[in-house]
Amino acid sequence: MLRNPQLNAKGELQHLLSVEGLPRELLVQILDTAESFAGVTERDIKKVPLLRGKSVFNLFFEGSTRTRTTFEIAAKRLSADVINLNVAVSSTSKGESLLDTVANLSAMQADIFVVRHGSSGAPYLIARHVKPHEHVINAGDGRHAHPTQGLLDLFTIRHYKKDFSRLTVAVVGDVLHSRVARSLIHGLTTLGAPEVRVIGPQTLIPAGAAALGVRVCHSMKEGLKDADVVVMLRLQNERMSGTLLPSAQEFNKHYGLTADKLALAKADAIVMHPGPMNRGVEIDSNVADGPHSVILPQVTFGIAVRMAVMSMVAGGG
Amino acid sequence: MLRNPQLNAKGELQHLLSVEGLPRELLVQILDTAESFAGVTERDIKKVPLLRGKSVFNLFFEGSTRTRTTFEIAAKRLSADVINLNVAVSSTSKGESLLDTVANLSAMQADIFVVRHGSSGAPYLIARHVKPHEHVINAGDGRHAHPTQGLLDLFTIRHYKKDFSRLTVAVVGDVLHSRVARSLIHGLTTLGAPEVRVIGPQTLIPAGAAALGVRVCHSMKEGLKDADVVVMLRLQNERMSGTLLPSAQEFNKHYGLTADKLALAKADAIVMHPGPMNRGVEIDSNVADGPHSVILPQVTFGIAVRMAVMSMVAGGG
Amino acid sequence: MLRNPQLNAKGELQHLLSVEGLPRELLVQILDTAESFAGVTERDIKKVPLLRGKSVFNLFFEGSTRTRTTFEIAAKRLSADVINLNVAVSSTSKGESLLDTVANLSAMQADIFVVRHGSSGAPYLIARHVKPHEHVINAGDGRHAHPTQGLLDLFTIRHYKKDFSRLTVAVVGDVLHSRVARSLIHGLTTLGAPEVRVIGPQTLIPAGAAALGVRVCHSMKEGLKDADVVVMLRLQNERMSGTLLPSAQEFNKHYGLTADKLALAKADAIVMHPGPMNRGVEIDSNVADGPHSVILPQVTFGIAVRMAVMSMVAGGG
Repeated sequence: MLRNPQLNAKGELQHLLSVEGLPRELLVQILDTAESFAGVTERDIKKVPLLRGKSVFNLFFEGSTRTRTTFEIAAKRLSADVINLNVAVSSTSKGESLLDTVANLSAMQADIFVVRHGSSGAPYLIARHVKPHEHVINAGDGRHAHPTQGLLDLFTIRHYKKDFSRLTVAVVGDVLHSRVARSLIHGLTTLGAPEVRVIGPQTLIPAGAAALGVRVCHSMKEGLKDADVVVMLRLQNERMSGTLLPSAQEFNKHYGLTADKLALAKADAIVMHPGPMNRGVEIDSNVADGPHSVILPQVTFGIAVRMAVMSMVAGGG
Repeated sequence: MLRNPQLNAKGELQHLLSVEGLPRELLVQILDTAESFAGVTERDIKKVPLLRGKSVFNLFFEGSTRTRTTFEIAAKRLSADVINLNVAVSSTSKGESLLDTVANLSAMQADIFVVRHGSSGAPYLIARHVKPHEHVINAGDGRHAHPTQGLLDLFTIRHYKKDFSRLTVAVVGDVLHSRVARSLIHGLTTLGAPEVRVIGPQTLIPAGAAALGVRVCHSMKEGLKDADVVVMLRLQNERMSGTLLPSAQEFNKHYGLTADKLALAKADAIVMHPGPMNRGVEIDSNVADGPHSVILPQVTFGIAVRMAVMSMVAGGG
Repeated sequence: MLRNPQLNAKGELQHLLSVEGLPRELLVQILDTAESFAGVTERDIKKVPLLRGKSVFNLFFEGSTRTRTTFEIAAKRLSADVINLNVAVSSTSKGESLLDTVANLSAMQADIFVVRHGSSGAPYLIARHVKPHEHVINAGDGRHAHPTQGLLDLFTIRHYKKDFSRLTVAVVGDVLHSRVARSLIHGLTTLGAPEVRVIGPQTLIPAGAAALGVRVCHSMKEGLKDADVVVMLRLQNERMSGTLLPSAQEFNKHYGLTADKLALAKADAIVMHPGPMNRGVEIDSNVADGPHSVILPQVTFGIAVRMAVMSMVAGGG
């Protein structure tokens, strides 16, 4: 049997590559550790010395200021030195390979590589080649995974709903192209959520969705009924017209979250979105800014979750 | 009566949005605080722990490396964590609104937003939507205001001239398009400078200039006579030809500061410029680098002023 | 006699502009100091407080993420505050001159300027205009010099070979356009290496090479024979075809380092390359990744060398 590439020989977190494949105990440990950091970010001095003298490289092969910023803040609040590398415009343009780039940075004595790459699997490739004391955190690889987003979603759900064992979670929209959905669904299944539904037009639901243990719904009426948690996905601009969808307006009519549709869910349902939102497309503003929305707390918890993952992989030394 | 959006309920500085509307005592308090920081930047270890553990976001919706750098240095010398966000190329390109961008960063537990934006009023809009413990500093909004530049100009004048109550200050050039001029003129008036003159061709002087309490002069001979302080404004490249001005040469001939024209001012007059200078256009090199010039001290004082403003809004907690 | 622009009145290192002109004792002092920092970068907390409260400006007039990163890491491990300035897209685009840009940054109380510029001599020009307590480190100027690369090459050779006095060093490839080669050759000569060979096609060897005290070889067979150290230079993409070289393939056939050609050198020869490598052009992958290669240790030592230079110029205060 192949060893889980995310764990070291003692079964501890070595890299964070995807939520898929994380044992239940480790998932819970990450969420518990994040809980302890959630307090830090509320304090007046939002800093702990856990990663003092460590070097975190934000290695972004595709741009994402928002995600890069959350990792940068998390690392600085752990007192790490942070180096931002926008590699798209850098040495790879001199024809250097991905592994040569990483080997070079590794030779500069890195501790953590936060990697975002357009190709699925790139962080796995890097993780296989770094030294034992170095750690890779996947910040989004192609359509494959975006585990810290999945983890912060799980943290948010646990924060508001306490217990996964009775939850109905509805994930709505472009499930097919969403690495967020994939990470989240795996986490929910692992933590024992009994009913996970995916809702969207047939063209945006992956063919094998049912095999993931989720219930596929093609109407909001069916999918939102008595849901505890509604997770709206971002509709990428490039999907809004063309072969997969007739138009953004049409999508909004059928799958956009309005106050009316939300009324189908439980009275205390929470509404989540990974951001950035297309207001008026997948979500109406009165819902996004309304009492059920926990979209901004998700962002806050995201910092704590990234601090947790970084300190778990590299804070021990 | 509307509350001053820059002050908290106790009348302390909550945001810095424009020099206009700052009470005289607060202006003096900023200058006095900056005085104390001017010493820090001369020391061997140029760092104080006033903002340790605080997060400063440099939120630049239009590029300005020079201004961004001064805020970054000021924040780091206060021991803050600084995150640079060049938002032009970031999430707004995904169609996210200004307020959603700010709400997101705010959810990451920001303490100070340093905002530069092409639209007048953008920092006011942001200030209205942030949480009570968050602070907005305007680093330039459209043609409206650039208050830290105005404050460093006032600091420089006070440093060299001690007392505003007998000063004649001449502001020369493109007053119409200058946010620097606007901030400075308000500050000078508030601090009691008895004579502020604006000098430039009719096309570059705002129609209502006289209403601001300044004297409008269309010749350097009239405007510089016995001036204590000469503030040259930068002539934007796009004004140098076309409908507002015949040419850069023509401007230089009439309004460029030469040694000859400077001789009209007092013997101990100081010459200021916000930078970057167009040497040979609005100012001759022998004046820019001459004994009356305090252009580089302005830059030095600018760091102290920004440290003062940041520590006043966020250093108390 | 003109004073050496790199030294202060006491003969200490004031700026690092080129390896050429550094006295032997100073070269040795830099290497010895780097030795002491090599240990720091191996530690768990890779930080020393030597430059705490100092401001290091990475002033890059041409892009080089790799070089900028090494200086940024070195400065942060010395606890300095680092400001990255990509000046190509900044104030010089407003027409400000190089010296005005530097004068401005200097007014912000800089301690070290790390300068990369496309024009040979730019760091010298800057060094002549900064204040006595400010220091300039050349991070590459045109085709002229890249002294920290030269120093890290020397450090690497000393690390593996201990003593320069019996060494045969072969420098292979585009010597004509390489600032790396120039710095290295001067250093080797100064430290007493008895035989330095340059190997390459006539079009890529400078006309006056022999005058530098090196032996010019036009075949690898002659040049690599019994060499202790083989330094491969990067072949710039723009040279790979056209008037100077028939093609990359042709170059590889004659001057690319293969295992076969390397067998001509001593059994314990080391192979170096400044990176980024063109695998299959100037060096084959099995050599680059083979047992003779010290290419990644070069990168590691580069951090220690940059820490040494920065602490020597600015750490005393």
